[in-house]
Amino acid sequence: MSMVRPSVHPIEAPPLTDNALPRGRMTDTQGMPGTLGGFVLRFIQFAFAAVSLCVMATTSDFPQVTAFRYLVAAVSLQSLWSLSLAITDMYAILVKRNFRNSKIVSLFSIGDGITSTLTFAAACASAGITVLIGNDLNSCAKNHCSRFETATAMAFMSWFATSPSFLLNFWTLASK
Amino acid sequence: MSMVRPSVHPIEAPPLTDNALPRGRMTDTQGMPGTLGGFVLRFIQFAFAAVSLCVMATTSDFPQVTAFRYLVAAVSLQSLWSLSLAITDMYAILVKRNFRNSKIVSLFSIGDGITSTLTFAAACASAGITVLIGNDLNSCAKNHCSRFETATAMAFMSWFATSPSFLLNFWTLASK
Repeated sequence: MSMVRPSVHPIEAPPLTDNALPRGRMTDTQGMPGTLGGFVLRFIQFAFAAVSLCVMATTSDFPQVTAFRYLVAAVSLQSLWSLSLAITDMYAILVKRNFRNSKIVSLFSIGDGITSTLTFAAACASAGITVLIGNDLNSCAKNHCSRFETATAMAFMSWFATSPSFLLNFWTLASK
Repeated sequence: MSMVRPSVHPIEAPPLTDNALPRGRMTDTQGMPGTLGGFVLRFIQFAFAAVSLCVMATTSDFPQVTAFRYLVAAVSLQSLWSLSLAITDMYAILVKRNFRNSKIVSLFSIGDGITSTLTFAAACASAGITVLIGNDLNSCAKNHCSRFETATAMAFMSWFATSPSFLLNFWTLASK
């Protein structure tokens, strides 16, 4: 910097087009945060988790079973996480900015890993109990089997939608 | 370095030691297939899955519950997969070869992803039913609660040991 001298001709600034990738930025892949694919994925996750939460919460006897209480907690967390990231994605699309630096992607990747693991665990535990009630004990008559099954299936669908987000973020993080 | 001038002494050939990485090979990380860390991880996975299988299979009433039957199937698959990869790792260590090209790593990564997901799902379903029996229904007196809990815990430990293998292989695959 000590070599900079005043000159009458202004030096041309380096071009700041989309092709110039600054350090710490990554290429644009659909499904990444800030893209339309990412927003659609987040919205699907949120929708399935919210439906699962509503269906399970409207059954009268879910608090008697620990796994169903855990499912309600897990899909609540999943829906909050997915909704906040969907809003962030929508904001990024509207202002035409992408915020894909390494720290953001690692934060999203860790959050996706935690929420998807919790949702999957809750869905599996609920599925085990639903199958136990329905198939093994044959006591669907005095239980809300169909509602339990619906809530479990929606939680699985939410996990299916979260996995691509997690794998894509993890892949981008590793390949940067 | 611009001061180097030609001389009558023959030019030294570039060294072809282990440091020279041929195209398509990856750096050596402990925990990767073919390393001692990888072998230890595989052996831990196999040991926990085998203990879980033995403990669950020795209970008399596990076939009555679908989730417990599924646990037996999942940890059987996990123990077979981990044992075969442990043998492969041991062979690679003994003959001092590493077989880490891209196809092998992607095969191992996919296999780890499938077996770890199945084991985790089985462990979660069993945990849900074990908690239902023990805490919600309080019927541990006429069930093998401690054995169910042990088998579930061992399946979770096996999943914990499989996750690093999967993430490490996936990371290596993405960052090659």
